[in-house]
Amino acid sequence: MKLLKDKILRDGKVYPGGVLKVDNFLNHRIDIQLLDAIGEEFYRRLKDEKITMILTVEASGIAVACMTARHFNVPVLFAKKNKTSNLSNDVYSAQVDSYTHGTTYNIVVSRDYISSSDRILIIDDFLAKGNAIHGLISIANQAGATVVAAGAVIEKSFQGGGDSLRENGIRIETLASVRALTDDGNIVFDK
Amino acid sequence: MKLLKDKILRDGKVYPGGVLKVDNFLNHRIDIQLLDAIGEEFYRRLKDEKITMILTVEASGIAVACMTARHFNVPVLFAKKNKTSNLSNDVYSAQVDSYTHGTTYNIVVSRDYISSSDRILIIDDFLAKGNAIHGLISIANQAGATVVAAGAVIEKSFQGGGDSLRENGIRIETLASVRALTDDGNIVFDK
Repeated sequence: MKLLKDKILRDGKVYPGGVLKVDNFLNHRIDIQLLDAIGEEFYRRLKDEKITMILTVEASGIAVACMTARHFNVPVLFAKKNKTSNLSNDVYSAQVDSYTHGTTYNIVVSRDYISSSDRILIIDDFLAKGNAIHGLISIANQAGATVVAAGAVIEKSFQGGGDSLRENGIRIETLASVRALTDDGNIVFDK
Repeated sequence: MKLLKDKILRDGKVYPGGVLKVDNFLNHRIDIQLLDAIGEEFYRRLKDEKITMILTVEASGIAVACMTARHFNVPVLFAKKNKTSNLSNDVYSAQVDSYTHGTTYNIVVSRDYISSSDRILIIDDFLAKGNAIHGLISIANQAGATVVAAGAVIEKSFQGGGDSLRENGIRIETLASVRALTDDGNIVFDK
């Protein structure tokens, strides 16, 4: 998606350790016009898939999920992060290892809001190691729902999460795929 | 806002201690059509105020803020919650006491994304004690920005936060105002 790649090149900042900071438009300050175009692009790719719900995880997935859901005219369900292991019986949960923060947390979703008839589009801001998306797939599976696809705004393909999910038969849609972040601060896209 | 009040009466659940749970449509599962109508209503009330940015706090404010920002065609900035007191110099921060969780946390915003020329609409899902909105006002003040108004989807007027803010001269816009939650589970609106 050219609009997005141009924005990443203009406003993205590269930090040591494979960190790409895009908090100017994606996950702190949010460029609503860009996110609307991002939502439209996910819709263009997936509009025939009879999606009934968009599933994401707080906090930085929520904006993209909402701006995408508007095009599909479906509800959003966002998983909550829970640092305690003390979970009630009325939730589905999955454990997620955070690569960025070096921690582990649970994500939880109320059983009331997801069912076996749902056809789910998972949405997140980044796809790096794929841990959050793996957790969301696990939750959808626990509910017996169908995961139609997982979409991320930016894939960091050099971290392998996307290919691992594709090898497991998950349809992955990412709008900008970053192949490398160089030591001198350059951002190299896959295509 | 009748559409919203009807939804609260139909799907809201009352729990002991003044808790109104609306996670069926507002802060876990998100009814995108309703939030779009909510955004449109905030826009109708405030469209002449030359708002340049919507400021909210993660996580449950983000959806409302985004669906409102689309109508104003302005960016969203969401404050991050930070449990450590170890803050860098490049942020504005404020301390917030959480009534619901009995904890205190910092909310932080990058200094890069808010300036003295901004005319800010603060948005959140609930206005109860008003602590989160007080924190966001403090951040806007630190940046020298103008707070045009603070909007919340649901005000719990019996907790006093809204009136306290109004007495301080802050324009408050709430779309459903709950006067009481009764022991037998009824929801009573102010008007």
